Amino acid sequence: MDIRGFVLEKATEAKEAARRLLAVNTEQKNRALVRMAEEIVANAAVLKEENQKDVEYAKAKGLSSALVDRLTLTDKRIHEMAEGLREVAQLPDPVGEITKMWQRPNGMVVGRMRVPIGVIGIIYESRPNVTADATSLCLKAGNAVLLRGGSEAINSNRAIVSILRKAASEEGIPEGAITFIDVPDRAAIMEMIKLEGIVDLIIPRGGEGLIRTVTENARVPVLKHYKGVCHVFVDRDADLKMAEEICFNAKVQRPGTCNAMETMLVDEPVADRFLPVMLRRFREAGVRLKGCEKTRTLFAEVEEVKEDDFYEEYLDLVLNVKVVKDMDEAMEHIARYGSSHTETIVTDNYERAMRFLREVDSSAVMVNASTRLNDGGQFGLGAEIGISTDKIHARGPMGLEELTCTKFIVLGSGQLRE
Amino acid sequence: MDIRGFVLEKATEAKEAARRLLAVNTEQKNRALVRMAEEIVANAAVLKEENQKDVEYAKAKGLSSALVDRLTLTDKRIHEMAEGLREVAQLPDPVGEITKMWQRPNGMVVGRMRVPIGVIGIIYESRPNVTADATSLCLKAGNAVLLRGGSEAINSNRAIVSILRKAASEEGIPEGAITFIDVPDRAAIMEMIKLEGIVDLIIPRGGEGLIRTVTENARVPVLKHYKGVCHVFVDRDADLKMAEEICFNAKVQRPGTCNAMETMLVDEPVADRFLPVMLRRFREAGVRLKGCEKTRTLFAEVEEVKEDDFYEEYLDLVLNVKVVKDMDEAMEHIARYGSSHTETIVTDNYERAMRFLREVDSSAVMVNASTRLNDGGQFGLGAEIGISTDKIHARGPMGLEELTCTKFIVLGSGQLRE
Repeated sequence: MDIRGFVLEKATEAKEAARRLLAVNTEQKNRALVRMAEEIVANAAVLKEENQKDVEYAKAKGLSSALVDRLTLTDKRIHEMAEGLREVAQLPDPVGEITKMWQRPNGMVVGRMRVPIGVIGIIYESRPNVTADATSLCLKAGNAVLLRGGSEAINSNRAIVSILRKAASEEGIPEGAITFIDVPDRAAIMEMIKLEGIVDLIIPRGGEGLIRTVTENARVPVLKHYKGVCHVFVDRDADLKMAEEICFNAKVQRPGTCNAMETMLVDEPVADRFLPVMLRRFREAGVRLKGCEKTRTLFAEVEEVKEDDFYEEYLDLVLNVKVVKDMDEAMEHIARYGSSHTETIVTDNYERAMRFLREVDSSAVMVNASTRLNDGGQFGLGAEIGISTDKIHARGPMGLEELTCTKFIVLGSGQLRE
Repeated sequence: MDIRGFVLEKATEAKEAARRLLAVNTEQKNRALVRMAEEIVANAAVLKEENQKDVEYAKAKGLSSALVDRLTLTDKRIHEMAEGLREVAQLPDPVGEITKMWQRPNGMVVGRMRVPIGVIGIIYESRPNVTADATSLCLKAGNAVLLRGGSEAINSNRAIVSILRKAASEEGIPEGAITFIDVPDRAAIMEMIKLEGIVDLIIPRGGEGLIRTVTENARVPVLKHYKGVCHVFVDRDADLKMAEEICFNAKVQRPGTCNAMETMLVDEPVADRFLPVMLRRFREAGVRLKGCEKTRTLFAEVEEVKEDDFYEEYLDLVLNVKVVKDMDEAMEHIARYGSSHTETIVTDNYERAMRFLREVDSSAVMVNASTRLNDGGQFGLGAEIGISTDKIHARGPMGLEELTCTKFIVLGSGQLRE
């Protein structure tokens, strides 16, 4: 099979559709999204049948039960997929928004208009619901989507795409707006990330391996999420009860997520009051503790933390604890070992709160709130296509606006360049 | 020489400085910029002496007189360089601006704060004034700059950087904020564009060859400018006198620029009234004309335009002319052959003006104005670091805002994730 030719053909189809989407209005897009939701529910039986093939193949291949679980489409998950499509229909349309407009001395009016990016390639792994989620967000923002899901979910993804395409096209959306790279071969990924001038943006969603491969080989811009090594700094002027609740929530509420705390930094003057109570609570919750020397003198049975541990994204009930002599040392530590994802200071000191907000360079910097709140839903962005740890184009949770760019528009009356 | 090690060391120095720049305020940056301007003027003799070495070497190597001219630092150019630094000091500081702020149902206040990108690599060719221009814009936006100028200008660039660094550091700016890759070897470029996690953004400024090489090999995000194949569409409802002035200005005022018109599209119903007058004027101005069949029946001595000509960025007094049957055909033509840079419609028809603005996908889309006005200065953005033909992060003229990104800030009062 000519994989290069196949991918190029699909991408070109998406590009042509992207151009036609520029003339589609909000009402049409919303009608299409609602219709897509209806058809997903109406075809639940077919979906489950196709999904069953993937599940059986995964089991036969001996894939882990966690993976098989992520792969499986239940009635509940199909319902949630449809619900997600309906929610996106409800969100405000970012396209066409004029974010600024001003007049120049020569009378020319210049503005910035929010427009679709064009063709967005989504490369993802086993969860088939990403097919519907990513499609809905890209479509609402006026983009054509080029989908490349994991090979384990190929039957499920194929079925979902076929339903979505048909439903959308019945509402006047060009079929190429939802395009699926129906090739399980990894070579297809390598081709699609090189299609400069046809594909405008790649968003890889998956493990670090996938993301590194995409970044290292892409010629198309990539928006990506690397790891989250998040910190809470308990300042000397913290409300220690609040600090305890925030640290506990940041570590324990859902440790497997990118915005969970991995290292707790404690200001020296409050370490002896704060740490014994806090660490006892962590211990009771089954958190494995690794601490600096000072921490280990204040609380028994804490393992010694090694320097490498500070770079680690545990995604588990494991925590580094370090006593620092002041906020400057905390900020130094965060700059050196952190991943610029999410950091919190707990303090009642106004000046230090403001300095921390200004000087810490992370996608979300918080005062007196749990790191777990760095999330599109929690921030009120509506749906989220992912979290960017990049600084270019989008940083932090990405909603519909991040799936658009702007162009300059000019309303003239015959102006010339002198 | 260990080029990899050298580039890594310089970039790391810049990264460390970028972190320290987060604590530098607007007044300090402005004082540094003014001081830099003063020192450039005070050291004009040294600058010209060092520049003379480059000029002599270039002449000895037999480089073109255009290149030698671009390389030469006259008193006037040195004065302009200093003036540029002072102008950037006058511009508003984008850093710290809170672009939005809102409250969530749990009482948490979420905002977006504009922050520096970090380390910006500028790769440029022979004009040494870029060294000062790029440095001033990066510094004002709080970024450290990693400069890599053309090998022909190495003595000039080295002297400029040394003056700027000293002046800035006397005002408390870390020296690493202005870092120069003092290696003429092209291998240095290859190293710097791969420093993911240290360099945050690369902006190549130069010919298409340089830009392609950078894009194809970079692992760091790149903001680039490819060619400008710009169009003017003269609609059937155009004021034909205005159309004539706009087309003439767009082609002739400065044909060597990226926003000059390369193809003029004329609506069929007005072609026989518009073209003879217009083409006679172009002919008198020395414009070489290439036209479609219809054009050639309306005006004698027009060469036949070939399909390949429509992709061409002439940067010269050459123009393609095509008669189209309506605006849809014009938009089809622009989408197929254009470079998404700048397009203008000349019309008095409101509905078509609005459709053109909405549906044409270019960095600047204009009604009744010359394409030559797509420019940071003309748009009122202050100084310009370049024009982006990308859609990610920045599109069109890039000012100070485009040298920043945003982070989320959260003002909490003990909020947790449920």
